[in-house]
Amino acid sequence: MTERGLLIVLSGPSGVGKGTVRKAIFESEDNDFQYSISMTTRKKRIGEVEGVDYFFRSREEFEALIQTGEMLEYAEYVGNYYGTPLSYVQKTLDEGKDVFLEIEVQGARQVKEKVPDGVFIFLTPPDLVELRSRITGRGTDAPEVIDERMRVAKEEIEMMALYDYAVVNDEVPLAVKRIKEIIASEHFRVERVIGKYRKMLEEL
Amino acid sequence: MTERGLLIVLSGPSGVGKGTVRKAIFESEDNDFQYSISMTTRKKRIGEVEGVDYFFRSREEFEALIQTGEMLEYAEYVGNYYGTPLSYVQKTLDEGKDVFLEIEVQGARQVKEKVPDGVFIFLTPPDLVELRSRITGRGTDAPEVIDERMRVAKEEIEMMALYDYAVVNDEVPLAVKRIKEIIASEHFRVERVIGKYRKMLEEL
Repeated sequence: MTERGLLIVLSGPSGVGKGTVRKAIFESEDNDFQYSISMTTRKKRIGEVEGVDYFFRSREEFEALIQTGEMLEYAEYVGNYYGTPLSYVQKTLDEGKDVFLEIEVQGARQVKEKVPDGVFIFLTPPDLVELRSRITGRGTDAPEVIDERMRVAKEEIEMMALYDYAVVNDEVPLAVKRIKEIIASEHFRVERVIGKYRKMLEEL
Repeated sequence: MTERGLLIVLSGPSGVGKGTVRKAIFESEDNDFQYSISMTTRKKRIGEVEGVDYFFRSREEFEALIQTGEMLEYAEYVGNYYGTPLSYVQKTLDEGKDVFLEIEVQGARQVKEKVPDGVFIFLTPPDLVELRSRITGRGTDAPEVIDERMRVAKEEIEMMALYDYAVVNDEVPLAVKRIKEIIASEHFRVERVIGKYRKMLEEL
C-alpha cells in the first residue's frame, strides 16, 4: 500500500531567506521529496530549461488553467503570472512522494484553502529588529518603500496563525534541520496513519 | 521570557516496549527533559529510593490526592495505586522544562482530558502479528489470558485516535530518534509560539 505523500509548504515574510533555506534542503544528502516546479508567463531566460526551472506558458494558457481550477496557487508579479500547477502536485503525492513548495504568503493562503492537510511551515526572522535591517539594508530604497515593507511584514507575521509551524531562520543549517525534523514527524501523525492500523486490525 | 515546557506522553499497548524506549531516550546524550516521577502505594523494594524511583505514599494519602484532583492520572493495579502527581508536573513545566510521562493507555486518556495541549505519542508494534507473538511469547499463560490480552491490544490500538503521533517500535534506536524529532518539532508549532511573535510586534 503506497501512502500518499505530504504536501509541504514553506513560506514567510519577504526577505526572510526562504529561497536559501529551500536550496539548502534540496542540496542536503538525505532529502527525498520532490520540489514542485512552478509555472510562469515570464520569458525564458538564457540557460533556463522548460520543466526544470519553470513550466513556461503563455498568458492565455495560464489564465485558462486558472479558470478551470487547475492552479493550486498563483500570483501576478511585475506583469507576469507565477503559480503551481495542481496536476503535477497531485500526481507526485499519489506516487507517495512528498512535495515541497516554497512560495509567498499569498500563495500559501490559497494552498491552505485547497489542501488543508498540507504541512504549513512559516519561516521567521530571528527577531523583528533583524527583519527591519533585512528590509532596510538592501540598498537605496526610499523611506516610504521601506515603511511599506515593514507594514507588509507585520501583516505577514500575523498570517503565521494560518500555519502549523514557525521555524526561526537564525542559521540556515539549523533551519534546515528543524524543517526536516518537522517533515519526518508529520509522517507519524495519527490522522495520517490510523487508517493503516485499522486495516491491520480488520485482517486479524 | 521562559517558555512553558511541553508535556510529552508516551503510551501504547501492553508489551510494545514503552519502558525500553523511555529508558533509551533518557540514556541518550542530548535529552533535556524531565522524567516525571510516579507515585505509588506499593511497598518500597530493596534499592528503591523515595523521590527517585517513586514517591511512596500510603493508600490514605494517595486517595486524598485523588479526591482533591491532585493526580494528573492514576490507576489501580494488583491492589496498589500508581499515578502521576500534578504538582510536580506543573512546577517543572512552569520552569520551562519538558516533562516526559511513560504511562499505560488508561492513564494517557486521563492526561488528555486534563492537559489537551500535551504531545501524545502512541508506540505501536511493527505489525499486529508481532504484537501477537509478544503477547503470547511471554511464558506459560493460559489461552484465555492470551485471548484477553489480544482483545485489550485491539481496544488499545483503537485508542490511537486520541493521540497526536503513532511511532512504530521496529528498532529501539529508530523509535527514539522519531520521538526526539517529534518533541523538537512540537516546540515550533505555531499555537505554541505565536504569542511571542505578537509580543514582538507590539514592541515595534
